[in-house]
Amino acid sequence: MKITVLGTGGGARAHIAKLAELGHEVYVGTRDPEATLARTEPDMMGSPPFGQWLADHPGVQLRTFGDAATASDGIVINGIDGHNAVAALTAISDRLAGKTLIDYAVPFIYQHTPEHPWPTPWGIMPKLDPCDTDSLGERIQRALPDTKVVKSFVTQEQTTVVDPGSVGGGDHTMFVAGDHADAKQQATELLKDYGWTDILDVGPLVCARGMEMYAHMHSAIGFGLGQQFGGHFGIKVVR
Amino acid sequence: MKITVLGTGGGARAHIAKLAELGHEVYVGTRDPEATLARTEPDMMGSPPFGQWLADHPGVQLRTFGDAATASDGIVINGIDGHNAVAALTAISDRLAGKTLIDYAVPFIYQHTPEHPWPTPWGIMPKLDPCDTDSLGERIQRALPDTKVVKSFVTQEQTTVVDPGSVGGGDHTMFVAGDHADAKQQATELLKDYGWTDILDVGPLVCARGMEMYAHMHSAIGFGLGQQFGGHFGIKVVR
Repeated sequence: MKITVLGTGGGARAHIAKLAELGHEVYVGTRDPEATLARTEPDMMGSPPFGQWLADHPGVQLRTFGDAATASDGIVINGIDGHNAVAALTAISDRLAGKTLIDYAVPFIYQHTPEHPWPTPWGIMPKLDPCDTDSLGERIQRALPDTKVVKSFVTQEQTTVVDPGSVGGGDHTMFVAGDHADAKQQATELLKDYGWTDILDVGPLVCARGMEMYAHMHSAIGFGLGQQFGGHFGIKVVR
Repeated sequence: MKITVLGTGGGARAHIAKLAELGHEVYVGTRDPEATLARTEPDMMGSPPFGQWLADHPGVQLRTFGDAATASDGIVINGIDGHNAVAALTAISDRLAGKTLIDYAVPFIYQHTPEHPWPTPWGIMPKLDPCDTDSLGERIQRALPDTKVVKSFVTQEQTTVVDPGSVGGGDHTMFVAGDHADAKQQATELLKDYGWTDILDVGPLVCARGMEMYAHMHSAIGFGLGQQFGGHFGIKVVR
């Protein structure tokens, strides 16, 4: 399939590489492709410059957000960070009409300071906006009424989302939520291709609140396991 | 041990019964013992009147909140609902000084209406207060600086907290958080007596935010499994 990933950060790269490995034609969207390719420094998360990374992934096509969205024949994965997602997606809403948008963003606001370069442990906690009475997933759906938004991939690091077998033999649970059954089915099939065997549909998109709010628990579990950032674990719903 | 449970609702009853079964001397705190025993109607959650329940649990001692707290020789479990917990506990702060208070409350605000007698699925969602930048666990600790607050039991129904083996053979994870290592150890030992084998210390009490905010995800998973209220499942951290 022709699948589009919007964003060039570490999470987006995990999906791009896996989708290419699975034989899909992968289009990557960025605000300004020339500027993205011109960067020579690691990004704020320490990922190497995208141009350098792209050279190791031949066949992957870098486009503007809009052109990348147009190239997809059905599925678009949103890897634009939470703060910028609604504005960036609204600007290309016509290109996303009729498509399935899988969103994994957590709308964390990090309050870095020089003394606390990371928000935990435990002097400064990140906060979520929106939270509790709304979610980023719902906001994106309201901004893009002609797109079918599915919230998924949220409850794990993207490196384990694309490689579930790397954690505990793969026996853990991935969740999908959304208001469009056919789009949830597309996301579920993609997850099966990624290697997932336990995929739970938790209901309508309002359940994105719980997935996004789980981010604090995910951080706490990671620190509890001594894994620091980029935790390598999953959660299994035990019936 | 002499262990106190504050509250007479369904969650509190699960702990009272289990602690008595384990051979502990159990004290139960309620605002007004005479009024509690005089009730003849089921409570708002449909639990039978406490007096009737108590008759089937001989040896359990019903006291005022304060007298029950005093009777404990170390551990007090807070089963007072989220809205009332800070005020009720502050009123007996001297009786709780030096003790370990294990709190499992979720500060949900339910917005019931006659058309929506329950908040989900999915017309009306409950909301949390506090949320994200504070937690009920932290509020209780600030109100009771001489008490050692441990947040635990939050991520499951209390019926499965006291009987972990009833879910998936017992291979799931319970979490503890708190600012006092000795109190977390007491909670951990109690959980082992309940039958838990995978108990993860996620860190300081600020991690109560994640546990309480997990409540939306817990509800969604329960509904996703078709279990409605009182879900019978757990989550396992898969490494």
